[in-house]
Parts: sequence; structure tokens; C-alpha cells
Amino acid sequence: MRTQVAIIGAGPSGLLLGQLLHQAGIDNVIVERQSGDYVLGRIRAGVLEQTTMDLLAAAGVDQRARAEGLPHDGIELLFKGQRHRIDLHGLSGGKRVTVYGQTEVTRDLMEARAAAGLATIYQAGDVQLHDFDGASPSVSWTQDGQRQTLQCDFIAGCDGYHGISRQSVPAGAITEYEKVYPFGWLGILADVPPVSHELIYANTARGFALCSQRSATRSRYYVQCSLDEKVEDWSDEAFWNELRSRLDPEAAERLITGPSLEKSIAPLRSFVAEPMRFGRLFLAGDAAHIVPPTGAKGLNLAASDVGYLWHALREFYADRSTAGIDHYSATCLRRVWKAERFSWWFTSLMHRFPDTGAFGQKIQEAELDYLVKSHAASTALAENYVGLPTEW
Amino acid sequence: MRTQVAIIGAGPSGLLLGQLLHQAGIDNVIVERQSGDYVLGRIRAGVLEQTTMDLLAAAGVDQRARAEGLPHDGIELLFKGQRHRIDLHGLSGGKRVTVYGQTEVTRDLMEARAAAGLATIYQAGDVQLHDFDGASPSVSWTQDGQRQTLQCDFIAGCDGYHGISRQSVPAGAITEYEKVYPFGWLGILADVPPVSHELIYANTARGFALCSQRSATRSRYYVQCSLDEKVEDWSDEAFWNELRSRLDPEAAERLITGPSLEKSIAPLRSFVAEPMRFGRLFLAGDAAHIVPPTGAKGLNLAASDVGYLWHALREFYADRSTAGIDHYSATCLRRVWKAERFSWWFTSLMHRFPDTGAFGQKIQEAELDYLVKSHAASTALAENYVGLPTEW
Repeated sequence: MRTQVAIIGAGPSGLLLGQLLHQAGIDNVIVERQSGDYVLGRIRAGVLEQTTMDLLAAAGVDQRARAEGLPHDGIELLFKGQRHRIDLHGLSGGKRVTVYGQTEVTRDLMEARAAAGLATIYQAGDVQLHDFDGASPSVSWTQDGQRQTLQCDFIAGCDGYHGISRQSVPAGAITEYEKVYPFGWLGILADVPPVSHELIYANTARGFALCSQRSATRSRYYVQCSLDEKVEDWSDEAFWNELRSRLDPEAAERLITGPSLEKSIAPLRSFVAEPMRFGRLFLAGDAAHIVPPTGAKGLNLAASDVGYLWHALREFYADRSTAGIDHYSATCLRRVWKAERFSWWFTSLMHRFPDTGAFGQKIQEAELDYLVKSHAASTALAENYVGLPTEW
Repeated sequence: MRTQVAIIGAGPSGLLLGQLLHQAGIDNVIVERQSGDYVLGRIRAGVLEQTTMDLLAAAGVDQRARAEGLPHDGIELLFKGQRHRIDLHGLSGGKRVTVYGQTEVTRDLMEARAAAGLATIYQAGDVQLHDFDGASPSVSWTQDGQRQTLQCDFIAGCDGYHGISRQSVPAGAITEYEKVYPFGWLGILADVPPVSHELIYANTARGFALCSQRSATRSRYYVQCSLDEKVEDWSDEAFWNELRSRLDPEAAERLITGPSLEKSIAPLRSFVAEPMRFGRLFLAGDAAHIVPPTGAKGLNLAASDVGYLWHALREFYADRSTAGIDHYSATCLRRVWKAERFSWWFTSLMHRFPDTGAFGQKIQEAELDYLVKSHAASTALAENYVGLPTEW
């Protein structure tokens, strides 16, 4: 079997790259170790930057996101018991974000891929990457007891933090940076109308809370929890009570509760692997970097990696230029570190930390006071939240 | 003995308050436990915000600061081996800072006080504050073996972190917030021309460095050092070599060295005591709060406390209104915490921390990259550096 680009992983990054390459006339095959249903079952982010929407449009799969996604022009910061709106749209010169679940993005991309008749190998066992330091890389896997091999020009590692792509790089060739946060997020998904039409980020004495949403009838709520908490110790009622205690009285009153569709605890981590290219292997998205979810940057950062890789591969096939390929890692990492910085900052600003004490809490409140008062500081938050220019 | 306002401490805060009150026709006496020469011998900050210059003007003691002070329209940030200028003047809508040593400010204020024939008690032993929770406070001290008492309407505690004023408040009435940083500043004062006409703040792999100045012929340089360092282990030559190693090649080449006039190691600390008023006792400046020197906010924050107190006392004596007095603590603390936040942030951004590792360093570099690229983020730095509006 042979293709131009072998894509490892059928999550949103791999699927988006596949569609973009297909639109550019570049042949590709996706190899995924899980089933399609498994991939669709993952509950993830739901806030899309304009650059991500633009890439979906370029891939020809933005119709439903545009029709059903909710454009958001602002967010609310809740601290010292009061909500303050950040006017993302006004402060960023007219940009906004679109609330549309990652699951829906994945579904749209899967359907487009199936409609185009493009090859996706699901449930590929023991995937291995070969010879990406030379001119003729390949990918092999086991399916139905048979070992399969796919010859290719390039491999795109879109298989997430635990995937085989980054693990295939010799340890000495990669530098990893990591920060683990001393808390987690207990999250709930429920078919109830959101408490507010915009997202609420809350800094409270009991810890962080986030009121998010997937649609006008499906809400996603989170509360900061300690890392020893177990999800089975949290009844739905206990969750709703804890969330309500972290809201201002008006929002607490308006909160509509209901049975959880999903409930889980996620740890928070910052992680970056450098570089993001090794010969003819490119890492993209979570395979190369993780952000804590506070800034809603995970999916968007994966999409911008994919956008850079799409440009680089088009340049290679259309113009026989390796410039884009050669700059891929440095170009991505400039944006990655700025998003890592923003996500770390916003996480640090909004959460209770066990070790910063009363001084840390006062500093957070002073920063939030300053943030909502200063046009410059509000603008800095807004420009990061809607997504920095891709050329930065 | 009787006066309207007893001022504890003849540092710049106490002296400035004394002159401002005198201009408003309010009688005051300063009680200082050290000698005047001792007070003048302290080497401290040297960057004045416009609001501080305005207060010196209101006190009638800005002539020399205006004539000899150096107006600075920008600072330089040095990181990853390159300097980037922050245009304070352009970004802040036309504000600037004035480089003029605290020692000179103190000297000007002392001379004005002497010229006006106002009473200053130096070398007052065992100073005690009495009855400030009632309507008739007083201050007592020992001089020449005699116990003296000063009756007054109000006491202004301008006697610094180690002074008696804050210590006179019952422990249960005060809340203290503190952060100690895991490093110090090794500083040198030398009669050599500054390496650059503006200040250089350097983030380097060897730690922070600051190229500051007191005049066109007197430089003040600092390098971050560990808390175990001893100043006697640092020859002038060793200091200059360490500083040079933290500069970019062009600045390192231009650095002019010379014998030190003063050399010392200072720890870095953030500290706030709340509230700042206890009946008829007001704390101002270092008596109530300490900032790490990175943002050059210490003297400026003391001056703005003094400015608020001057207004409050004028309101009391001219209009018989206690509104300013009643709001003094809350008004000061809003500004104090914003300056504490800025000083903590700028310190955190520029120094090597022993416990944040490689991730912390990359995040600093990403923030600095972002800071010099983003107009909004540069503006936020500039508006804090030149001083936030006093009404915030």
C-alpha cells in the first residue's frame, strides 16, 4: 500500500489534515488504533477560534459548525462575588469565538471523509513508524491478524499525548517541558440550558468554576477539585450544590440542574515536546503539546499546527519547496508557547493553589480588579482568547 | 508639646507629608529615632512616577528634581540575548518617569523643612504611640535622658517596615500578607556613566540583571544572587564580570566599570498590612507595605499614600469632613495591591526561580516574546511602570 501522507490518529487533528490535503489533491491514509465510535465518544473542548473555523471552511466542513455553532462575543469573569464581562468582540477588533463541541467537529470531519471515499484504517493494532529519518518512511500495523505496511512520503503524528508517534522518536532527539497542576477539574455534561448565554469563569474562595456549554440545550460545567477526589464520590446533587456555591447569587438562582450525561475528573497539565519535526515525521496537536483547558486552546492549537503542516506540504508538492517543512517546527512552537503561556497564566489566575496562601489569593484579586479596569489588560486577554494572529 | 499631626519617621514619606501639610497650613512635628545623616545615608530607589513629581511640586520641593532629574521615556527588556525597547511615553499617552535618587529627594525635603523652620526631633529614643483609638492621641520618646510627650490630633506612621507605628497596633486588628522570594539583589553604586541612557532589565540564564542609574555620571547596577551569597565574597571585579556576562554583546562591550561607592545584598519581599488606618493612626509607605524593587514602585507607592493622607487631612481641617479619613485605608489599598501585583509579576517574569525548572524559563521567554510583540501587553506594562491613575 502506498500514499503521499500517512496520518496517525483519526481525532480532529488527523481528520482535519486529511480533508485539507485531499482538497489540495494530496493523497492520504489515516491509521487509527481505536474504533470510530470510540473516537467520537471522547468528550472534549468546545470553543473554536476564528482561525479554526477558517480551516474547517478550507476543508469544506464548516457548514454545520456555522449553522449550529453559537458565536460568542464575550466571556464573564466572576470574582469577589461579582461578574464582569470581557467584550472579546469589541476588544479584539471584531473577532469572536464559536461554541461548537469537539465531538461535533470530529463527526462532521468523519462524514466528509467517508463521503469523499478516503481511506481510514480503524482498530489498527501495534502501529509502528519506520525510516522517517530517510526519504522513504512507512507505517505498519496489525489488522485481522495480518501485518500491513503503508509506504509514504511523510508521516503526520496526530495521535495525541499517549500516541506512538512521539514515542517513536529517539529519546535524545526530543526535549520535553512539563508542569503538573496541584488540582483537577470535575466536569459534568447535562441536557439543561446554560446558566448564561456566555461562558462564566469564576475565581472563588472554594476554587475555580467554569460554566460552559455545547449548545442552547446542553451545558458543560466544571469545578476545581483536589487530585484525591474520586468521581464516584460525587453524586449529581453534590456537584450541582458545589457549583451553585461558587456562583454569584443571581446566577446561582438561575442555574437549572438535571441528570448528568457524563461526569469525570481530569488532571491539568502543561506539556511541550521540542522540536515538532524529525526528518519526515511531523507531530501535531496533543502529540506534541498539552495545555490546561482553562484557555480553551487545546483543539485550536492542534488546528493551527495542522494549518501550518497543510501549507508546508502544499508547498512541497506544488512548488517542490521544502521551506515550509523546514520551518514547520519553529513556526508551530512560536504559537504553541504563546498559547501555553496564556493557558498557564489564565489557569494560575483563576484557581486556588494549595501553596500560595493568602498572599496568592490577594494577588489574584488585584490582577482581576486590574484586568477588568484596564483597557490594555482586557485587550491582552481578549486577543489571546480569540486567538493570536497566526503569523506571530 | 502639642501639634496637629505627629509624623513618625523622617524618611521621604514623612518629610513629604510634613511639607504638604505645612503648605496647607496644618502644623506638624516629625519624630525620628535616627540622625539626619543616617537617614540620608540609605541608598534606595531612584525612579519617580509623574504623580510623585506632582506631589513634590505641590510640596514646593521639585525644583532640583526637575532640573537635575533625567526624564526617561522608555525601558529596555533584554532576553534571549536581545534588547527590546518599551516606549513608555508613546504607550502611556505621553507619561514618563524621572530618574532622581531617593537620597536626593530626601535631601531636598530636609532642606525645605529646615528653611521653613519646622520641628523635627532626631535621635528620639524609645518612641511610643498612645491613645490613637481615641480623640486625643500622643507620642512620647526619650531624648537626653528626658521623657518627652507630644499631644496631637493624628499620628502618621511613616517609619518603615521595622518602625514602631505598625508594631503599636494590637495584633488582632491587623492582617499581614507576605511573600519572600528565593533570591536577592547584589547591587553596586559607582561613579561611572550608565551603560545605556535608559534602564535595561535583563532576563538571562544566569539570572536577572538591572542596569539603572542615578545621574549621567552615577550608575546603579544589580545582579540576582542566591540568598547564601555574602557581599564580602564579591570583589568589584567579580561583580563587573558577572554583570557583563548577563548583558548582550553590544552593552557588555560598552560597559564602563569603576570602584564601588556602595555594595550590598538586599532580599526581595512582598508585604502588605491591612487595614492602613487604626482610629487616629495612619500607616503610610513601607510601614504598611513592601514591594520587591523590580518595578520601582516602593517610593512611588509611599508618595501616593502620603498624597491620599494629605487630601484626607486637608478635608478634615478645612471642611470638618471625615470622608477622606474614613476612606483612607481602602483608597490606598486599591492602589497598593495593584502595585504589589505589578511588582510581583515583573519580578516573577524577570528572575530565575530555583523551583520552576525548564518549563518556567520557557514560559518567561514566551511571555517576553508576547510582551514586546503585543501592543496591548506592552501598554499594560507601560501604564503600570509610569504609574496607574490615582483614582483607580
